[in-house]
Amino acid sequence: MAAIKYRLIKKDSRTNARLGILETPHGVIETPVFMPVGTQATVKAMTPEELKEIGATIILSNTYHLYLRPGHKIIEKAGGLHRFMNWDRAILTDSGGFQIFSLSSLRKIKEEGVEFRSHIDGSKHFFTPEKVIEIQNALGSDIIMSFDECAPYPADYEYVKNSMELTIKWAERGKKAHKNTEKQALFGIVQGGIYEDLRKECAQRLVEMDFPGYSIGGLSVGEPKNVMYDIVDLTTEYLPENKPRYLMGVGSPDDLIEGVIRGVDMFDCVLPTRIARNGTVFTSKGKLIVRDAPYAEDFSPLDEECDCYTCKNYSRAYIRHLFKANEILAARLATIHNLYFLIKLMERIREAIRQDRLLEFKKQFFKKYGYKEEY
Amino acid sequence: MAAIKYRLIKKDSRTNARLGILETPHGVIETPVFMPVGTQATVKAMTPEELKEIGATIILSNTYHLYLRPGHKIIEKAGGLHRFMNWDRAILTDSGGFQIFSLSSLRKIKEEGVEFRSHIDGSKHFFTPEKVIEIQNALGSDIIMSFDECAPYPADYEYVKNSMELTIKWAERGKKAHKNTEKQALFGIVQGGIYEDLRKECAQRLVEMDFPGYSIGGLSVGEPKNVMYDIVDLTTEYLPENKPRYLMGVGSPDDLIEGVIRGVDMFDCVLPTRIARNGTVFTSKGKLIVRDAPYAEDFSPLDEECDCYTCKNYSRAYIRHLFKANEILAARLATIHNLYFLIKLMERIREAIRQDRLLEFKKQFFKKYGYKEEY
Repeated sequence: MAAIKYRLIKKDSRTNARLGILETPHGVIETPVFMPVGTQATVKAMTPEELKEIGATIILSNTYHLYLRPGHKIIEKAGGLHRFMNWDRAILTDSGGFQIFSLSSLRKIKEEGVEFRSHIDGSKHFFTPEKVIEIQNALGSDIIMSFDECAPYPADYEYVKNSMELTIKWAERGKKAHKNTEKQALFGIVQGGIYEDLRKECAQRLVEMDFPGYSIGGLSVGEPKNVMYDIVDLTTEYLPENKPRYLMGVGSPDDLIEGVIRGVDMFDCVLPTRIARNGTVFTSKGKLIVRDAPYAEDFSPLDEECDCYTCKNYSRAYIRHLFKANEILAARLATIHNLYFLIKLMERIREAIRQDRLLEFKKQFFKKYGYKEEY
Repeated sequence: MAAIKYRLIKKDSRTNARLGILETPHGVIETPVFMPVGTQATVKAMTPEELKEIGATIILSNTYHLYLRPGHKIIEKAGGLHRFMNWDRAILTDSGGFQIFSLSSLRKIKEEGVEFRSHIDGSKHFFTPEKVIEIQNALGSDIIMSFDECAPYPADYEYVKNSMELTIKWAERGKKAHKNTEKQALFGIVQGGIYEDLRKECAQRLVEMDFPGYSIGGLSVGEPKNVMYDIVDLTTEYLPENKPRYLMGVGSPDDLIEGVIRGVDMFDCVLPTRIARNGTVFTSKGKLIVRDAPYAEDFSPLDEECDCYTCKNYSRAYIRHLFKANEILAARLATIHNLYFLIKLMERIREAIRQDRLLEFKKQFFKKYGYKEEY
């Protein structure tokens, strides 16, 4: 039996948006879904119970980070990542590809794999497609990624073409190495930079290999938004309707809506948790830097329309004070709010698809939030 | 009507330990009690709900810190400290005396008050006994402290005598300035260093002024433990039986037990929360530095005998990983555990008094924890 099962519930009549149900070994996920990021086996500042309370059904964790610290062997001995971190809902782990190319130094890419140095202590490591699967098998995450090269932006056609070819070869090797197919679903990652023919070719060749799901990688790395949206549009066209599609590393409110409209089912991004820790929060009227002086005596909640724990119990003045005083509770309250905001946004998106009014929802949301509707 | 009411329930037959009930405008407190410290209007790393879950009935917050940041006027505008920080149980605020003498620089002590510079921005401020009451009236804490000079250790007799005289004069002025006696109970602070006659005189003269409760200040500032215990012993002898006694800034497990034995009802200390954030936790078998290497593959809880949230759900290996990775959850889990440990210890102490077996409890606890029974 396959590890996951995707059921398409409804297609939007005017866009490529889809409403779906993704069954995993650790619970059922309504899609489109936003996955909070728990890089180091913890969603920063949150407990698992708090994640459940705000409605998270699946989180992402990072293969690269967990391999380096504490080490996948320790997590395996602990009984797997779910048990290690006390999270009994679904987990997706990434391939490490993006981190190797963004965090580590002195990497050497060969067909066999990638040699890199740890961003923690400079130690030397070698990742192959097989090794990356072995690590994720040890972690026991529900959805795992095949190893990929995440090409930088900008990069010339030749570079990206070779990189894409490598990613396809690595996907084949990863698929072969993956042993635990009944408990863990392996996704192939579509690369190809901003080149439409490469994206198309990569998608088609991965689909031929028949993965349980497909990721769209190498976007949101500096290219203009319209380029990203066009690539997503084009890529999902070549992906099968009966498999989930995951747009990697994307998670601003506008990108979530635009991604859903283009047929994406799953998203992750460090944005909500990272900006929260710096004192910036989402509100229905746009971003708000709560640590700024104007909020010193503002006793209203972060967002009048929000009913998260933070907004029900604390004022902007109090949260600002916590940030100024470097208190841990500041990061906690802002993180709860930002994650709730995005998870609630996905709920509203799903409801809009159900009612066939996604474009109207987008229009209203963009206007209130202060986004220009350009795409 | 008085703001608080203390009822003595039972006296231990072989020690000066007392079981009591302290009624406050924000709930009933069983004594002896340990008060977690929320210096800057938050008990570091904790939410109010988590504090309630571990059984906290009263917390302490710092007048000096709140005056400097965010400012007592802002907290007053927010509706008082309880509402500002979303805590509806009791709050005790200290006098600022200890902080002025330990944190701020360039202080000038006069009979009128103390000029000092902020530890945050170096700005100049002047605290008088009246000002300190005014600040605490604005905060709205249930139990407030009169302004005191906390003499350093060691200090010669003349210095401490003058300091004690000043503290008594300030107590008189504070009592006169305190307007909100029906909602806030003002405690006098017994000073006098390690000099028995000064402690006795200070206690007697404060008792003549008839405060709703008495604090013992200026201890645990570097003097040997036996000296501290002797001073506590002597001081409580001169305090009335029908008023609560609070030993300021004391909170290691042995000091809590020894303090209770000497007739103390209330304690506070940053120790459990501070060491938690550095990766050190209390266990029934003594302190454990969980961030150390031996725990990397230790999948047992922090303390096998503990049933706090942390111990029920997480392993030493996971918590160690969180500390190594500088994750906020590390501080959260260790703080919950350490506070629970002390609050549970006080529960067990109260139960032991109830059953007239406090000395036996002390013996067992000390032996298991690894303390020598010297006093």
